[in-house]
Amino acid sequence: MRIDAYFTAAEVDPAVVDGSTVVVVDVVRATTTIVEALANGARGIYPTASTEEAVKLAASLGREDTLLCGERRGRKVEGFDLGNSPREFTREAVGGKRLVMSTTNGTRAFGVGQEGVRLLACAFTNLGAVALEVAGDEGLVVLCAGREEHFAIDDALCAGHLIKRVMEAASRTHGLNDAALAARALAGSRKPTRAFLSQSAGGRALVAIGLGGDLDLCAEVDRHHVVAEMRDQAIILSGK
Amino acid sequence: MRIDAYFTAAEVDPAVVDGSTVVVVDVVRATTTIVEALANGARGIYPTASTEEAVKLAASLGREDTLLCGERRGRKVEGFDLGNSPREFTREAVGGKRLVMSTTNGTRAFGVGQEGVRLLACAFTNLGAVALEVAGDEGLVVLCAGREEHFAIDDALCAGHLIKRVMEAASRTHGLNDAALAARALAGSRKPTRAFLSQSAGGRALVAIGLGGDLDLCAEVDRHHVVAEMRDQAIILSGK
Repeated sequence: MRIDAYFTAAEVDPAVVDGSTVVVVDVVRATTTIVEALANGARGIYPTASTEEAVKLAASLGREDTLLCGERRGRKVEGFDLGNSPREFTREAVGGKRLVMSTTNGTRAFGVGQEGVRLLACAFTNLGAVALEVAGDEGLVVLCAGREEHFAIDDALCAGHLIKRVMEAASRTHGLNDAALAARALAGSRKPTRAFLSQSAGGRALVAIGLGGDLDLCAEVDRHHVVAEMRDQAIILSGK
Repeated sequence: MRIDAYFTAAEVDPAVVDGSTVVVVDVVRATTTIVEALANGARGIYPTASTEEAVKLAASLGREDTLLCGERRGRKVEGFDLGNSPREFTREAVGGKRLVMSTTNGTRAFGVGQEGVRLLACAFTNLGAVALEVAGDEGLVVLCAGREEHFAIDDALCAGHLIKRVMEAASRTHGLNDAALAARALAGSRKPTRAFLSQSAGGRALVAIGLGGDLDLCAEVDRHHVVAEMRDQAIILSGK
């Protein structure tokens, strides 16, 4: 198995994505929230690039069992049902619902990743499930959403812990690109904790708006054993 | 002192560069070669974006004491005097000469970096000298040239060791961005060695064309106590 990581969507090599399983990582907070929502019974999550597109899509899906979710600058979009705080996505709130989600950073990564054979969403909260799911694949691309097209250390750390787990589970790995080597090295010396995430640009921004409590959940490794996979327009539980 | 690192030129925030000292890192091999040339008596190095531009500039500078240097795909450009192998840049070859240098990866970084207050070139070979030189500055931007606009682990490791040294030398550092935090963490668990550099994409490419021996020199920390600084068009020894 070959493993390539990318710290920003701009760096992705389309030739490598083609034929690979792509795993998108956006720890603070899009993929953490997606995992939380699916683990708590949401039927599917529809990522969109803008709030306008989200409103249109929700109307076309049928507003009665669809929730509008999303943030701008970390806070819930006005008039939306939910923001992007994973703690909001409880079973009571999202069970049986379709979620249309507009996020700042995750969207471009999901777009780029759709060129792969499969597209999964990974956070610390479902790390082990994703590692087992992809361990038998030929090629793995770990795509960090980053923060506004910049390197994000929280995503890099999650990518590194995923790569470590995959290398433990896969029969044979060979050929890590520079970013995969660096992410794995980072994971060798750092564990996800609220304190670690609080140092990151994404974490600091959350703390600044009073949502630092989200970081406890974002740092919880293997909180759920679920695999989130993109199918057509929506991210759903794999195997469903 | 605030420290921001960037793993690719595309990620650089112009507002951060403005008012900061910029240090460009391109371990394999542009900045290693620049340091070697200046330590061995070259009068100045003129980086250019293309071989055609290099030929024109060399003609305008006066061909008699100017050497044309540069590589494409790692090998010396046909008709040029020197390639980009630091081992070529001996005192006999470059003493007293002006060098016009066309490199694949370093050029964009030097262009972006010129918006800063000062622009220095750093490699493992002059790490300590650069750290002392910048330790009193207000803001430091460490700009990794990377490899074809992608993350390069050799540059990230050098950036990390530089940041560690600067933090030891500076009276007070505060505010590292995510890339600076990650580079420092990488430097905490990895040292530059030929074996380490051989794993990187840049190192593997050199080994593949029989130039793996360059990596021993590229990995040699504090081989020279020189600071290389851009002034107008040329990189020269600082203080000259």
